[in-house]
Amino acid sequence: MTTREPLKLGIAGLGTVGTGLLHLLEAHGAKLADQLHRPVEVVAVSARTRGKDRGVPLAAIRWVDDPVKLAADPGIDCFVELIGGEDGVARRSVETALRAGKHVVTANKALLAHHGFELAKLAEENNVALNFEAAVAGGIPAIKTVREALVGNQVRRVSGILNGTCNYILSKMQEERRPFAEVLKEAQAAGYAEADPTFDIGGFDAAHKLALLTSLVFGTRVAFDEIHIEGIQSITAADIDAADELGYRIKLLGVAVLTDSGIESRVTPVMIPVEAAIAGVSGVTNAVSLDADFAGNLLLVGPGAGAKATASAVASDIVDIAAGFVLPPFGVPSSRLQPHKRAKLGQHKGDYYIRFSAFDRPGVMAAITKRMAEQEVSLDSIVQKGPRGAPGALANIVIITHETTEEAIRKALDAIEADGKVAEPPQMIRIEEL
Amino acid sequence: MTTREPLKLGIAGLGTVGTGLLHLLEAHGAKLADQLHRPVEVVAVSARTRGKDRGVPLAAIRWVDDPVKLAADPGIDCFVELIGGEDGVARRSVETALRAGKHVVTANKALLAHHGFELAKLAEENNVALNFEAAVAGGIPAIKTVREALVGNQVRRVSGILNGTCNYILSKMQEERRPFAEVLKEAQAAGYAEADPTFDIGGFDAAHKLALLTSLVFGTRVAFDEIHIEGIQSITAADIDAADELGYRIKLLGVAVLTDSGIESRVTPVMIPVEAAIAGVSGVTNAVSLDADFAGNLLLVGPGAGAKATASAVASDIVDIAAGFVLPPFGVPSSRLQPHKRAKLGQHKGDYYIRFSAFDRPGVMAAITKRMAEQEVSLDSIVQKGPRGAPGALANIVIITHETTEEAIRKALDAIEADGKVAEPPQMIRIEEL
Repeated sequence: MTTREPLKLGIAGLGTVGTGLLHLLEAHGAKLADQLHRPVEVVAVSARTRGKDRGVPLAAIRWVDDPVKLAADPGIDCFVELIGGEDGVARRSVETALRAGKHVVTANKALLAHHGFELAKLAEENNVALNFEAAVAGGIPAIKTVREALVGNQVRRVSGILNGTCNYILSKMQEERRPFAEVLKEAQAAGYAEADPTFDIGGFDAAHKLALLTSLVFGTRVAFDEIHIEGIQSITAADIDAADELGYRIKLLGVAVLTDSGIESRVTPVMIPVEAAIAGVSGVTNAVSLDADFAGNLLLVGPGAGAKATASAVASDIVDIAAGFVLPPFGVPSSRLQPHKRAKLGQHKGDYYIRFSAFDRPGVMAAITKRMAEQEVSLDSIVQKGPRGAPGALANIVIITHETTEEAIRKALDAIEADGKVAEPPQMIRIEEL
Repeated sequence: MTTREPLKLGIAGLGTVGTGLLHLLEAHGAKLADQLHRPVEVVAVSARTRGKDRGVPLAAIRWVDDPVKLAADPGIDCFVELIGGEDGVARRSVETALRAGKHVVTANKALLAHHGFELAKLAEENNVALNFEAAVAGGIPAIKTVREALVGNQVRRVSGILNGTCNYILSKMQEERRPFAEVLKEAQAAGYAEADPTFDIGGFDAAHKLALLTSLVFGTRVAFDEIHIEGIQSITAADIDAADELGYRIKLLGVAVLTDSGIESRVTPVMIPVEAAIAGVSGVTNAVSLDADFAGNLLLVGPGAGAKATASAVASDIVDIAAGFVLPPFGVPSSRLQPHKRAKLGQHKGDYYIRFSAFDRPGVMAAITKRMAEQEVSLDSIVQKGPRGAPGALANIVIITHETTEEAIRKALDAIEADGKVAEPPQMIRIEEL
């Protein structure tokens, strides 16, 4: 076979991922060219700081100060957006590149979670690719698996451990029996959590990724705002201990499932039986689980972030483009993407874990169980612990329910709080039977 | 976009997978045609028994008695081989199809493990695809992941739980504390094991799949004969118990790793730390683990067999062909596939589990530890159990070594056997630190 014209890349953003991509192309570019019969060439880059030593030779590569200019550069075939951010220069440069008929590869989950549908339309109008494997679960080939491997399937449920920071914190709390605040501080020091950790621990980053997965598996328009989001801030050492005793692990899980009334999508802490393979996914590792009508249950586990893993996903997107393999960004043409229809609220059925911090007074348990019975919530187990002699201390009451609806649980908990027998708002965690 | 000519399939073999594929195309064919702008049509089939009710309408589909004739049929674009067997009609029909310029999709691991290199050459000479996603780990997109997602990587190690029958038996032995023979009988009754189970429990089926993975990840010619194969027949309840106490699970693992002296590839029972995600893969489920220089550690878990999961993998191969996406069967052109160079024997380094059934006489432990010391094998732990009073009964001695070579272990065990202090050949299981 004869060697074809090179695929010419313009890379915007030379942070850890951009630099990782340059390293990857330096290490494996010759092999790729050989396999593709087509060299992949970085012809121009754009980044904030020019002088910085990035450990890769940049002298031969054209420097363009403005990423939006780079996006429209006649010398490039493919624009690689590694700037980040849902709006601003990232959005402007991606739009510019698509309009100029350039393929786009991006790792930008925020951009796609908020503007994915419009950008997909723009890509299709211009007959170019908009690939974003690196935007979901880093090095895990989640998008390739959904778009290509499961193409002959109806996926019924997608779920995942989609944020490494949260999984690191929850794993450490469990393994070392230490409180949330302490582990968070350590994660910040180790570079696993930002100085302002809200975006990660509040569940928003995981929700960006879930929004993209949901669109891909159900063929719907990206709908970040339809996701119910709870973070891990409320998880205490008492919850971790109780989970351990009951045979569960607590994970921040993104879940999207097809129900009769629409799509239920949520990012919340859940309890997962310790025997489930996904319960063994610890530290910064991510996981994506897919339940498909023919393929069955697939679980993909791997690094969710990091320069090298993310660069690997970006490279795989670039190679698909170099090989001429262009799919609609969300699997089906954007004209076929259905509006996202949200499932009726409160209809989620399952078992629940509830923990009360209660004053050690007569009648507490009676009040709790009465309110549960009123909502026809039946109980699988109740364990009360402490207070061991300490005067004024609070008792921890842990209840596991049988299957019930979230609506029933919420009504019961509201009534219990109103009764004034508990010292803090009750903790409620869904139990996922995988 | 205008709709293109249909991709015309000829399917040979209507057993469980072939029928599963017809069901999949019935359920999702319209959606696929829509996505591909190209219908996928089954125009002809071939199977042993014509009259049988397969639960799908076959009346409109041409019947061809001889699969080799079907392979050369001018009416088909793509030949789907679901007959099975490493030679005979499966091989003849695949060769015929490739020579006739038809794309081939097959689930036949035995055929490819023995003739993969020659068939890949034939496919390339005729500019057609030879896709075999279903041949390795059923519904898990292992081949797509290696060939496409990890294209920018050097994979250093691939391993996997590649045989559902073995994993089912080992899981049952562990969960229900029952002996091998009893669980095997049950697996046969449940249809999870063949009447002659040698092919599965002897490790040969797993080795077929490992041979294909090895070729794909290291860019070498398929070399089934270079794999060191041990089955699970020798695993006893005592081993399962000891593994459990030590915090391990026993799995039949296929492993191929790049070493300085070549490729080490083996299918053997191993002990895996219970905390590792792959240790949680139980029952008939399969798993493939990949260690790549950029992507890091990926673990893919899913159904390794079954009509629907296998059909899903076959469908994904067909869709790639329909979309015009044709890659060399083993990732790189077969002219670049290197001869498989086997690593020096006995150089595998790691910790080992060894169990002796020893006569309860003075000096046994001294003899064992002396022979170990002679080979400079240092010991992490020794536990002796029983015999509890039963006269003439045997003591179980379990030893965990520190890191050493397989060569040293084998020499020590040979010497211990020659000393005549042990009643049976010692059991030796590698410990995989993942």
